Amino acid sequence: MITKQEIREQIIRTVETVKRTNPMAGSITNMVTINFVANAQLAVGGSAAMVYLPEEAEALAKAGGATYVNVGTLLPVHEQTLPHVARVLYELRKPWVLDPVAVGIGSLRNRMLQRFKEYKPSVIRGNASEIMALAGLWELEGGTKASNVRGVDSTDSVDSAKAAAVALARWTGGAVAVSGETDLITDGSVIVYSYGGSHFMQKITGAGCALGGVIAVYATAASPFIAALTGTAVFNLAATRAENKVLGPGSFQVRFLDELYKASPEDIADNRFDIEEI
Amino acid sequence: MITKQEIREQIIRTVETVKRTNPMAGSITNMVTINFVANAQLAVGGSAAMVYLPEEAEALAKAGGATYVNVGTLLPVHEQTLPHVARVLYELRKPWVLDPVAVGIGSLRNRMLQRFKEYKPSVIRGNASEIMALAGLWELEGGTKASNVRGVDSTDSVDSAKAAAVALARWTGGAVAVSGETDLITDGSVIVYSYGGSHFMQKITGAGCALGGVIAVYATAASPFIAALTGTAVFNLAATRAENKVLGPGSFQVRFLDELYKASPEDIADNRFDIEEI
Amino acid sequence: MITKQEIREQIIRTVETVKRTNPMAGSITNMVTINFVANAQLAVGGSAAMVYLPEEAEALAKAGGATYVNVGTLLPVHEQTLPHVARVLYELRKPWVLDPVAVGIGSLRNRMLQRFKEYKPSVIRGNASEIMALAGLWELEGGTKASNVRGVDSTDSVDSAKAAAVALARWTGGAVAVSGETDLITDGSVIVYSYGGSHFMQKITGAGCALGGVIAVYATAASPFIAALTGTAVFNLAATRAENKVLGPGSFQVRFLDELYKASPEDIADNRFDIEEI
Repeated sequence: MITKQEIREQIIRTVETVKRTNPMAGSITNMVTINFVANAQLAVGGSAAMVYLPEEAEALAKAGGATYVNVGTLLPVHEQTLPHVARVLYELRKPWVLDPVAVGIGSLRNRMLQRFKEYKPSVIRGNASEIMALAGLWELEGGTKASNVRGVDSTDSVDSAKAAAVALARWTGGAVAVSGETDLITDGSVIVYSYGGSHFMQKITGAGCALGGVIAVYATAASPFIAALTGTAVFNLAATRAENKVLGPGSFQVRFLDELYKASPEDIADNRFDIEEI
Repeated sequence: MITKQEIREQIIRTVETVKRTNPMAGSITNMVTINFVANAQLAVGGSAAMVYLPEEAEALAKAGGATYVNVGTLLPVHEQTLPHVARVLYELRKPWVLDPVAVGIGSLRNRMLQRFKEYKPSVIRGNASEIMALAGLWELEGGTKASNVRGVDSTDSVDSAKAAAVALARWTGGAVAVSGETDLITDGSVIVYSYGGSHFMQKITGAGCALGGVIAVYATAASPFIAALTGTAVFNLAATRAENKVLGPGSFQVRFLDELYKASPEDIADNRFDIEEI
Repeated sequence: MITKQEIREQIIRTVETVKRTNPMAGSITNMVTINFVANAQLAVGGSAAMVYLPEEAEALAKAGGATYVNVGTLLPVHEQTLPHVARVLYELRKPWVLDPVAVGIGSLRNRMLQRFKEYKPSVIRGNASEIMALAGLWELEGGTKASNVRGVDSTDSVDSAKAAAVALARWTGGAVAVSGETDLITDGSVIVYSYGGSHFMQKITGAGCALGGVIAVYATAASPFIAALTGTAVFNLAATRAENKVLGPGSFQVRFLDELYKASPEDIADNRFDIEEI
């Protein structure tokens, strides 16, 4: 099993590489949080670009080191763009991060998410209800038949999504990150619990989306598992640091971006986590 | 006539219920201010979710306690989504808030707004020019034939929209909120004037949209009239408090979200207002 | 050749006129930075309105004093909207600002940008790679055959785009602004270099887009060349002032908007610049 020390070293290397190389990770993402996703990606040292058309998504997928796909606010054009870009990424063996926002609230969304099964996203990031519903949609262990997603919120605990997260990671051969009070990241053979964060993360829109975008940035420089861990760690660290210095969710979001930017590789690696063998 | 004390008690109850139950209010809204709308809804204790497709809008309309509809930046898909979701909401007798942004600048916009007449939005929120133009479009008293809307700005005073607001509220059986220096809220039988706010509200985009979204959150827990009053009161309070502590519109928007979050039920209820019988 | 003193006087007049008249400049712009564009336009004293449909873009083009066109995140509807609004603006002899974001990453984008050649945008604003790629697309001097744009970032220096900028300005009869460490603005006969700014401008998304929107606001009250100069000067001034007072990119963006709002006509005119005859 990978040791804590090995994980720490890989996190440090990942953060340093990103800060040095300013890697581009393109996104097809929702319109609610698109600005926050881009700003979070820039804050950790990446470069962001967002598109909607199939051909442009393909161009970004080829030009970028990794791609972020978030199904938050679908438009008709997504019916062409999403399966196309997922296939391109899969065929190029390029890492991509899937955010199955609000899985279950419509047939296009479910159809898109169903098709992603064959294109094996390198990282799947979601809240517990989304992870369980996606596993259900893909007919994997731990999945739920009906989605418990309420709008974009989870109604399940991170722990209840453990089996689904492991099953998804085993299917894709990549990693799964479940966001919640304590975050769970797995590559299908070990589970890491990442601590920290802030209650304000629930009071700003897009904390999960921004994490997905940042994981895509790190996935340009690390394995899906280490990318998911690094992204989760810097978010937990920055949120903890920001919370103590702010008055409410407005100033929290501002300070959170500042702390993302300021976090050193060592501090990110030292953010508290535990490992569990499956 | 309802007394000031009764209004205060209902505002307190509404704010407390929302803070306790975290109700979901979905939105079909414009892309300029969609992030601010969601963050304002979260700040007062609600849950936000935004969609564009007809089927997903229907799902949100059914799942949420109320819905916010803003016609700010129309895309072709809105031609299907908007009348569909309005009819669903009307048939389910679920509260919904209409923001007739920039009424008059295009035929799709006017066609959509015209069709909403039969689906009787529970709350209509707009600036004076928008309220008068909508009343004109619906051929109600106080309406203007041509829209005086300039882009998204009003060129009329709140007072000049009084007859139109009352006529709209009588038609829908709901409430109308006219935003301006002093805000006017009516249910067609009484008018409440709500005081406070800040000149900075004109210097940030989306103050009106965010108010519409917050009124939808309160409409999950109160009558349209009390929801419109509560939303207007917390906005006036938060804006007044924020203005004194900031340097310009950037820090104003941040502080405004903080103050929305911190405002207590009692302070919101105590924000100055006057009642006038019609 | 125009003198520094004449330029300073025209900048002061432009800033004062905008602050006094609150002119409307509509936008067709991307969804990543649409909120920041609007807030920057409001901060300098303008009025903002954003649309996507052809008919509504025409209405805004006619109602506004100038229009901002940014091809950042294209949707299918842009295929109708963009050439239509460009032709309307050209025929009305109304100023418009073109932001050729990410030129080269798709065929619709290139087709749109190619068609704009005949509609002669009053101001073209972009980074060095975009300016050179656009000149190439239009088969003008200094242009590059292939685009060096990486996502939305430049890989070329401002100086290397000088010939392309001059050629574009001579073709349109307007002005070109190249954003970079030192900004270059030309009307085809003189070049102005504008100094200041902040390294944080690269760490927030949309600094370029917001500048384009603000130039459109100033273009309602000045020649394309003076509008481009004024917008660039206020951005460099506000960025310099903001940088010293912030902890990271989150607080930088907030403070930058505050400084845009507070900048006096005289201070903007006094922001350091040099003139060079071609």
